Amino acid sequence: MAAPPGTPANFLRKVPDGDEMERLVCSDCGFIAYENPKIIAGAVVTHGDSILLCRRAIHPQKGHWTLPAGFLELHETPAEGAMREAWEEARAKIEIVDLLGVYTVKRISQVQMFYRARLTDVAIEPGPESLEVGLFQMADIPWDDLAFPSVHWALGHFQETAGRDDFAPFTNPPGWENV
Amino acid sequence: MAAPPGTPANFLRKVPDGDEMERLVCSDCGFIAYENPKIIAGAVVTHGDSILLCRRAIHPQKGHWTLPAGFLELHETPAEGAMREAWEEARAKIEIVDLLGVYTVKRISQVQMFYRARLTDVAIEPGPESLEVGLFQMADIPWDDLAFPSVHWALGHFQETAGRDDFAPFTNPPGWENV
Repeated sequence: MAAPPGTPANFLRKVPDGDEMERLVCSDCGFIAYENPKIIAGAVVTHGDSILLCRRAIHPQKGHWTLPAGFLELHETPAEGAMREAWEEARAKIEIVDLLGVYTVKRISQVQMFYRARLTDVAIEPGPESLEVGLFQMADIPWDDLAFPSVHWALGHFQETAGRDDFAPFTNPPGWENV
Repeated sequence: MAAPPGTPANFLRKVPDGDEMERLVCSDCGFIAYENPKIIAGAVVTHGDSILLCRRAIHPQKGHWTLPAGFLELHETPAEGAMREAWEEARAKIEIVDLLGVYTVKRISQVQMFYRARLTDVAIEPGPESLEVGLFQMADIPWDDLAFPSVHWALGHFQETAGRDDFAPFTNPPGWENV
C-alpha cells in the first residue's frame, strides 16, 4: 500500500521488530506513524416527524444532501462528536437518543457511528460546510441526491426503528459489507 | 498538548487554514498529521457458561487478566478486529453474536467496542501477548486482578444481557464517563 498523499519522503513501509504488519516508519529516526481506522460520528436528527439534512458546501459530494456527520476528534465520545457536527454543519442543538447504526467503509477504513437524536431548539442555519440545511418529511427526502451510501443506510434503518427503543444497532446492509 | 513521543522535531502544533483546531503540522513541507481517536475491538467470548480470559504478557498491566481486545487495523470492521484479536491473544476461533458495549476512554482517546461472541472450537492456547488463557465460570473470574476498567464494565454488562438478544449497547457506567 502506498503512503498517504503528503507523507514525507523519508517515511518507508516496513514491518517493525515484534510486529506482524507493515507500518510507515521514518528511515531517519525510526518514528512509527501508526495508521488506524477513523471514526465518523453523525446523527439522524428529528424535529417532530421531520429529519435534518445538510447540503454539502465542500468536497467530496459538494452540492449533495447528507446527515450531519464528521471525523471524531481526540477526547470526544462518539455521541459528543455527533452533537458537535450537528452544531458545526447546521447550527443545530441536539440531544442524543440512542445508537442507530455502526457502518464500516473498509476501502477508506472508516467506522461510521450514527445516532438517533432530537433537535432541542428548532433554530437551524447552514454552518461553513453547508450550502443549506432543511427539515424534511420522510416522503420529501431527496433520495436520488444523497451524498453517501451510509446516508441512505442510516435513513432506511431509522425508518425501521419507528416505535422501538431497545434494538441492536444496524450494520452495513447485505451486499454492502465490503464497500 | 505536546506532540506524541517520537514525533519528529519539525512537527509543530498550529491551526491550519480553514480548520478550527490545532494539528501537528510539518514546518518544512506543511504535511498535516491528523490525530484521531483509535478503536479498540474486543469480545466477551463464551463456551457454555464459561468466559475466555487472557493473562497479559506485555505492558501495560502485564500479568493481569483481560478480555481479548486490541487496536482495530486498517480495512477491518470492528467485528473482524475482535475475531482477529481473539486469535492473536488466545488462538481462539470465535463467532460474533452482537455488540455488547461502546466505551470511551477520553483521556487516551480510545473508543472501545466489545462484542458478545462464542467459541467455535474449544481449543485455545496463549498467543505471543498472553502468559496464559483460560475459561472461567462467572464466580471464578479474578475480579480483583483485571487489567482495565473496561474489562470490568464489559463483564458486568455481559451479565445483564443474559437471555436478551435485542438491546442497545451499553456505554461507560455512571460516574465513569470522563475517565
